[in-house]
Amino acid sequence: MRDIYVIGTGITSFTRLEYPLAEIAAYPAVAALRDAGIDKVDHIYVSNMGGGRVNHQTGLASAVVDHLSMFPVGAETIENGPASGASAIKTAAMAIGSGMFETVLVTGAERMNEVNALDATDFVASLSHPLAEAIYGVTLPSLAGMFARLYMHKYGVTERHLAMVAIKNHANACLNQFAHVQTKITMEGILDGKEAATNNPPIALPLRFFDVCPVSDGGAAVILASAEVAKDVAKKTGKPLVKLAGFGQATDTHAVHEREDPTSLTAVKIAAANAFKMAKLAPKDVSVAELHDAFTILEIAESEEVGFFERGKGHLALERGETQIGGKLPINTSGGLKARGHAVGATGVAQAHEIILQLRGEAGKRQVKDAKVGFTCNFGGFGNNVVCLAFVRE
Amino acid sequence: MRDIYVIGTGITSFTRLEYPLAEIAAYPAVAALRDAGIDKVDHIYVSNMGGGRVNHQTGLASAVVDHLSMFPVGAETIENGPASGASAIKTAAMAIGSGMFETVLVTGAERMNEVNALDATDFVASLSHPLAEAIYGVTLPSLAGMFARLYMHKYGVTERHLAMVAIKNHANACLNQFAHVQTKITMEGILDGKEAATNNPPIALPLRFFDVCPVSDGGAAVILASAEVAKDVAKKTGKPLVKLAGFGQATDTHAVHEREDPTSLTAVKIAAANAFKMAKLAPKDVSVAELHDAFTILEIAESEEVGFFERGKGHLALERGETQIGGKLPINTSGGLKARGHAVGATGVAQAHEIILQLRGEAGKRQVKDAKVGFTCNFGGFGNNVVCLAFVRE
Repeated sequence: MRDIYVIGTGITSFTRLEYPLAEIAAYPAVAALRDAGIDKVDHIYVSNMGGGRVNHQTGLASAVVDHLSMFPVGAETIENGPASGASAIKTAAMAIGSGMFETVLVTGAERMNEVNALDATDFVASLSHPLAEAIYGVTLPSLAGMFARLYMHKYGVTERHLAMVAIKNHANACLNQFAHVQTKITMEGILDGKEAATNNPPIALPLRFFDVCPVSDGGAAVILASAEVAKDVAKKTGKPLVKLAGFGQATDTHAVHEREDPTSLTAVKIAAANAFKMAKLAPKDVSVAELHDAFTILEIAESEEVGFFERGKGHLALERGETQIGGKLPINTSGGLKARGHAVGATGVAQAHEIILQLRGEAGKRQVKDAKVGFTCNFGGFGNNVVCLAFVRE
Repeated sequence: MRDIYVIGTGITSFTRLEYPLAEIAAYPAVAALRDAGIDKVDHIYVSNMGGGRVNHQTGLASAVVDHLSMFPVGAETIENGPASGASAIKTAAMAIGSGMFETVLVTGAERMNEVNALDATDFVASLSHPLAEAIYGVTLPSLAGMFARLYMHKYGVTERHLAMVAIKNHANACLNQFAHVQTKITMEGILDGKEAATNNPPIALPLRFFDVCPVSDGGAAVILASAEVAKDVAKKTGKPLVKLAGFGQATDTHAVHEREDPTSLTAVKIAAANAFKMAKLAPKDVSVAELHDAFTILEIAESEEVGFFERGKGHLALERGETQIGGKLPINTSGGLKARGHAVGATGVAQAHEIILQLRGEAGKRQVKDAKVGFTCNFGGFGNNVVCLAFVRE
């Protein structure tokens, strides 16, 4: 397959957005086109999970072409639950890799503010096994709660470690103007202090309010291109070349209880290994990573499964500050799903957006020094379909 | 891009199916695997439109991997409204074309029986422009009715011509054991006779009951492969090699009233031209075609836009019997959407399935003699995102 580069990127605020879903997809696309200094692409992929269910909008990809007035360019929507974004980027990479297209726009969007919290949870529960899980009231937070309980018991992870993930990611989000929750939190405020129990009520114990990502509206876009186009664009914009050096994907059983070890995220392990193999890189080469911290425990578990830390030791690296900005391997500099926000179909693209800014040296106050290799892990369902991406600044 | 072949195909009955959506996708996949004589593939694309809305099932692609026990193979759902099926086939072709994969399974599925007719119409209306059409009660049948009225006025097409499409496609469906409506209909029964008004009530005049496709449940699958794998499979199975020689896609304005000429299906014209160009073929080379006759008028209009007949002359070719089995260019030998049925996300794949059977000489009583080149037109929204495929028997 020929080499694939990123030539443009854009994002909306992750927050409550008052404009329609197709516009949430179109605005970051316009920002990405402007970033690349181009006004059209050969193809468009839209990543979205809830258009049909939540927004009475199907055929979203066609609506986005209409909003961008880019007829007769072809377009499809790619859905892989919360991993839709990275799936769309991977699909776009192969479309360019095949030689059919020189430039492909990927734009991810979700608009959840039309549903209340209960409906949002029910909607997301449509990812779990309909006959073995969802029908019994198993939601994604409840799966995460059970996973956390087992994991903590097995590896000595405590509620304090979970809180450290939240505190770190909220601090990072305070440096990101597009983040949903730009609020500093402290151990005193969410675990130790007098007000902690009120501030941080249980959601699915041991997970509390500050262990769970918000339900966000938002959009993010990247434009991929062939080497020839990318070099041309780089010459005009003066921006560093960022290569999508590898991608990997893996699936696992739909029902979590069918896994041999329910604390193993096997799909994360395989997807990451595939991405590193394709990129001819190892976990130790990574300068900055965005992991799928829909629940705080997942950042710790994924940081081990992708190979950054030994199994069961991720919380110790966190404790030592290695995953903070300024640490050896900063994780979720954007604020992560936890605080940048989780606009489901946009999330994987937003992860890539953050990595591209970091590799180009455009991440402002949250810039990781000399970031050269970036990595994303986008986690679908409860780990039953995972897509990892590896980016390199050339 | 390297050459792409079809090595396996399968289908379910298009009817009311009492098993879950993921099984509707898995069963034809198993049939296609058996047809190819293989038990795994490198990747899976699922085409579906309504899982999230109608069946409380998102992440359908991951569920299908689970049903097929094909871990850790990657999978995504592709949505492009009623053109999801052909979009997924096109995406799979590029994935193989890129060299990433040798075999990709495409399985399309829809399960609509959970919603009543009103909800089904509302669901499909989520394809129309939310602010310019859907909000005013414009449904897909109403768009088709307005299109038919203009088209008939402009080109002298009558209700009898529309009925001829229905009569032909019902007759074809009677030769297809998987078709939804295996009922012979006559001009007497639906237009001329005493019972005609009762049998064939208005839906969106000039379109009547027998001008509109049924709402079907169903699934269909094809497996694409590289030339190397395909030649190996053909040696083992003894089946003729069928090549996916070309694909083309085009978009058009979301709101139909924004088109310069609302009787022009510009996206059909461009998508077909692109597919023929890529395949190095012309419309006159086609032996058999499946066109997207969700409404009878569309078969006539598409037969012109793809280049089979001159603009405004399609109904005359129909009248002369040229599009019947035994005619110069049989159209919708499967029964088409009109009578084979329209299980939205599966439809484009079912069209390909029919063409593959025809090119292999496996279409039984509806076999087109010496079929060598087959063509499909899969129509998304009201013609705002169209995908055409060209297949050749080698």
